[in-house]
Amino acid sequence: MGDAATPLAEGVLRGEVRAAARLMRSIEDGLASAEAELRAIFPRTGRAYLVGVTGNPGSGKSTLVDGLIAHYRKQGLQVGVVAVDPSSPFSGGAILGDRIRMQQHAGDAGVFIRSLATRGHLGGLARAATDVVRVLDAMGKDVVLVETVGVGQDEVEIAKLAHTTVVVVVPGLGDDIQALKAGVLEIADVFALNKSDREGADRTQKDLLMMLELRGEAPAWQPPIVRTVAVRGEGGAELAEAIAQHRAHLEATGEKARRETARAKAEFLALLRERLVRGALERLERQDPAGARLDAIAERIARREADPYALADEAARG
Amino acid sequence: MGDAATPLAEGVLRGEVRAAARLMRSIEDGLASAEAELRAIFPRTGRAYLVGVTGNPGSGKSTLVDGLIAHYRKQGLQVGVVAVDPSSPFSGGAILGDRIRMQQHAGDAGVFIRSLATRGHLGGLARAATDVVRVLDAMGKDVVLVETVGVGQDEVEIAKLAHTTVVVVVPGLGDDIQALKAGVLEIADVFALNKSDREGADRTQKDLLMMLELRGEAPAWQPPIVRTVAVRGEGGAELAEAIAQHRAHLEATGEKARRETARAKAEFLALLRERLVRGALERLERQDPAGARLDAIAERIARREADPYALADEAARG
Repeated sequence: MGDAATPLAEGVLRGEVRAAARLMRSIEDGLASAEAELRAIFPRTGRAYLVGVTGNPGSGKSTLVDGLIAHYRKQGLQVGVVAVDPSSPFSGGAILGDRIRMQQHAGDAGVFIRSLATRGHLGGLARAATDVVRVLDAMGKDVVLVETVGVGQDEVEIAKLAHTTVVVVVPGLGDDIQALKAGVLEIADVFALNKSDREGADRTQKDLLMMLELRGEAPAWQPPIVRTVAVRGEGGAELAEAIAQHRAHLEATGEKARRETARAKAEFLALLRERLVRGALERLERQDPAGARLDAIAERIARREADPYALADEAARG
Repeated sequence: MGDAATPLAEGVLRGEVRAAARLMRSIEDGLASAEAELRAIFPRTGRAYLVGVTGNPGSGKSTLVDGLIAHYRKQGLQVGVVAVDPSSPFSGGAILGDRIRMQQHAGDAGVFIRSLATRGHLGGLARAATDVVRVLDAMGKDVVLVETVGVGQDEVEIAKLAHTTVVVVVPGLGDDIQALKAGVLEIADVFALNKSDREGADRTQKDLLMMLELRGEAPAWQPPIVRTVAVRGEGGAELAEAIAQHRAHLEATGEKARRETARAKAEFLALLRERLVRGALERLERQDPAGARLDAIAERIARREADPYALADEAARG
């Protein structure tokens, strides 16, 4: 370290909030300068424990995350939060709620909350989330919570980042539980049955249990279902305990290292993809510096004058 | 055409269900053989009108889609449906509901419903959906409905495929409407306020209208809000009419051609990405035929012996 070429990295490694915020901004904006900083902090990462929290809008997962923050802070742990905001694939704005939450913890230097919008940059949201988590890790955060909405492909990608993934469900899923089934079962290490004081909580718990049992052969880890009422702060300690138990399981079985290697592989492939595409687009642009070449290709395809498969083959050859 | 190397394409162009089903299966399985068939049908595509229908689980969008199918069939139109199933990123199974729906229309040769699971293949779900839509287009379907769950990044990608995107909302979104806001507003050409006989429908309609007005300058197209009760078949004709009006708007303003060019550009880039990554992975494998090279890279990264950015640079150079 100590390299003048990476001033933000130095600040981040000293735990400086301002440097971390600036680096995260560069990551989100896709600035090329972010990479040198990330490379500089990389050797000093890998210590934070990563917890993913995912659930539909309205499931109360932000309130659950707030409860987890409070719990970890009481244990004297440093906490980072990445709130992935899917509402802004185009507008890029952070949602109001996150700003309010950030203010709530503003006086606590042991908490850093960053909301991340999906600006559709080349590497995708999972890439940006990976890098922002890395910054929090390098700052010395002991636990990093990654909050995402829903259970789409993005969420699956981001869940792969986490050591432990908490899926938040609410009573009355009804028929939807069938639709959520496979994807949720695959990513959930712990279920939080939130708003569990509501009618239908017992039924939803039973449905979840049945789904878990239907998986066939006994898995090495059976995801526990923790009942919570996040708005009243109920069940937060139990949820933290379930996460701790899953962590102990991962460490005891060697699964933690396996997950970290799988994550490294996914990241390497994402970075490779990004570099290859950038290189190919630069080559295309050099062939026609006016920059109209990509548009011309798109128009030829739209008019059915050439097929996209052949044109992509040609561009890939360079 | 008439090429013995692409037997499925010939069948598809004659409207044969069996050939179409086999080609779709090859697409979903990511078979290399699918591409020659797709290239063979490509010049005969571009005639179908594409309608995206998206909404949260439980919003009743499948029932709405069934209503639209019935409506278009009465008009004598051929209909294709691609039901993108996000519940199966890992397991790859189609959900029960779709099987039941397919049986319901099984006797009608003018309807082809295909459910598409996210098997995590290289090109991603949007790529597979593009190709399946292309097969339906080549079969001679006049309208192709693409049904997706939720409003994550995948849905945005898939919405870009459609000429008209219908976003299904239900009463009582409450605070969630804030979270859904930006993403939904950007992709919705038509809103279906389903279950509109429920309490809170007027309030949700008012909230939606307010969101639309908050967008600032008057847009060229103001998304209508159509009230429906899909389970009773109410509002289906009005929804089809709103879609028809949006289509007329796209055609009158030249926006239809612009959307098609944008879609062609996105597809070209996705194909280019796929080819580049495949090429790089093949190069890596040649360097170490045992196939352990990618795993070795991942382990070095996980152990912090090398950073992923540098290793990706190296692999991209070939």
